[in-house]
Amino acid sequence: MTMIETHTRKSSPKRLAIVGATGAVGIEMLRVLEKRDFPVASLRLLASPRSAGKKIAFRGQEIAVEPLSENSFEGIDIALFSAGGGISKDFAPHAVKAGAIVVDNSSAFRMDPKVPLIVPEINAAEAASHTGILANPNCTTAITLMAVYPLHQAFGLKRIIASSYQAVSGTGAMAIEELRQQVEAIASGKPVVKEVYPHQIAFNVLPHVDSFLDDGYTREEMKMQNEGRRIMNLPDLAASVTCVRVPVYRAHSVAVTAEFDRPVSLEKAREVINAAPGIQLHDDPSRAVYPMPIDCSGEDDCRVGRLRIDCALPNALTFWVAGDQLLKGAALNAVQIAELL
Amino acid sequence: MTMIETHTRKSSPKRLAIVGATGAVGIEMLRVLEKRDFPVASLRLLASPRSAGKKIAFRGQEIAVEPLSENSFEGIDIALFSAGGGISKDFAPHAVKAGAIVVDNSSAFRMDPKVPLIVPEINAAEAASHTGILANPNCTTAITLMAVYPLHQAFGLKRIIASSYQAVSGTGAMAIEELRQQVEAIASGKPVVKEVYPHQIAFNVLPHVDSFLDDGYTREEMKMQNEGRRIMNLPDLAASVTCVRVPVYRAHSVAVTAEFDRPVSLEKAREVINAAPGIQLHDDPSRAVYPMPIDCSGEDDCRVGRLRIDCALPNALTFWVAGDQLLKGAALNAVQIAELL
Repeated sequence: MTMIETHTRKSSPKRLAIVGATGAVGIEMLRVLEKRDFPVASLRLLASPRSAGKKIAFRGQEIAVEPLSENSFEGIDIALFSAGGGISKDFAPHAVKAGAIVVDNSSAFRMDPKVPLIVPEINAAEAASHTGILANPNCTTAITLMAVYPLHQAFGLKRIIASSYQAVSGTGAMAIEELRQQVEAIASGKPVVKEVYPHQIAFNVLPHVDSFLDDGYTREEMKMQNEGRRIMNLPDLAASVTCVRVPVYRAHSVAVTAEFDRPVSLEKAREVINAAPGIQLHDDPSRAVYPMPIDCSGEDDCRVGRLRIDCALPNALTFWVAGDQLLKGAALNAVQIAELL
Repeated sequence: MTMIETHTRKSSPKRLAIVGATGAVGIEMLRVLEKRDFPVASLRLLASPRSAGKKIAFRGQEIAVEPLSENSFEGIDIALFSAGGGISKDFAPHAVKAGAIVVDNSSAFRMDPKVPLIVPEINAAEAASHTGILANPNCTTAITLMAVYPLHQAFGLKRIIASSYQAVSGTGAMAIEELRQQVEAIASGKPVVKEVYPHQIAFNVLPHVDSFLDDGYTREEMKMQNEGRRIMNLPDLAASVTCVRVPVYRAHSVAVTAEFDRPVSLEKAREVINAAPGIQLHDDPSRAVYPMPIDCSGEDDCRVGRLRIDCALPNALTFWVAGDQLLKGAALNAVQIAELL
């Protein structure tokens, strides 16, 4: 473990571990900790044995990646997990037993009633009730709720119908490489190799994110309703989503129709979004200003635009929200949760 | 004008003109006429003076492109227009005056109550009432209705909420080239040139198709409701759409939630789609079978999949439809209309 002195205003520096440190989200967690001046007393980088020994820079120091084991969590205050649901299920209990608090980016514990599911701008207060594990929500859900929640507070949310445009980085570093290689293969007339996705993703769209349930929805699609109910404390929320992978490297976009209990107004909707933390209104169609994934990549704040009174459903607004799913959809939200502890 | 002998079963070969013959849709019209063995007595290819003199092959003969003028339509039976709304408004009346019947692919006449707006699989009978001009619907609308109409017949359509994933070929040949060049520029570290779209389309998505209306919708988005009402004879249809350009070369996809007057069943929905012309059910998620734009490119039939009982809206189905917008969304539908005449 590498000791790193901190010079922040924040008190009680924490001994951190990152599980899945070499993955797309793990790397972003390091950048977010640096950028937000998180008070780090020490940092342990954990990954599969395959990645062990690899060195990763943090605040100017090289830290060697260690292989994840049941004994990796001795002396750790906070463990940020982002290595898939299986790893979280197997190793989070060991981390908790060793005295660490786990912030888990996988779907493993999100529906566990003992585990708070937190978007700090929405339900930060619930973090206090944790019993060792806190869950970070699904990326598309987190980004969508950043726009939906202030509108819910104003008008009372009833129903969401949404379609996503999800970047390949949501799948991980291998998917980014697959898109790059497929584009290159097509440009040079070579055969397209498919390893990460079941079909070509370059110059194509796949209405297929995560695995399918018996009712025809994917697990990813149902996260908006299941996780949205918990995060916004809306047990009756109904949400029908179509999740689609698009050939974009980074940042997800979502077309959202949200139906409310009360009549809506554009003026009020703009007002509450402008006042809400973590979300910016980018909405000036006459100047071609609207959220786009290439503009949201690397940005902490999500963006909402194309805001309009829905023409088909009473008391409804339709809009377009985009955000960096590696940041608000994953690493940033996880570090924000850690900041609450 | 080049005379071409026809050897088809169909009677009375027609003297055809294609306006916009060198465009993405014009070229497809030629291929569709060939493929469907349309009885062509003669073929006149018309385009801007810039393209005049260019030669295009049709049934093994080279035909020289002529510059479009008011006098281009002497001796023409049917004129297929696909050169933009302005050209249609200016020149269709001259074609009609010269005795030709116009099948117009632009938006110029679609909402004119004297002009039938036709999807042959839906309202072929209305073609007979034309007074010289027939309109071809918007591409995204035509593709969506191919799936929606059989479901409407079974359950009674009330409302549509949809999001599109529209290919660059919907914009035209220049947009195809812009995407190709942007991808190449990014691969080689050169600056991205934007001429057709206001923003980079490579590895990005733009919630912006056609121009914006005061209420925040685009013209393209309102076509589903406006044209859907006419084509399906449903004056009260409500449709809220978000139209999005994606970095796909060809074929549009649409995520559709359709609400009906009566209870829906998956079994009946599959049955009516299987029985409907021009649409194929590709729906076996467990084997990763669903419609995708790369599979629909060059295909006459549209495809529907991801069919499910909507989990948020009563009496509703959610599904995913894809189709080649240069074919069913444009050239094929136009030639099918011509076949009705």
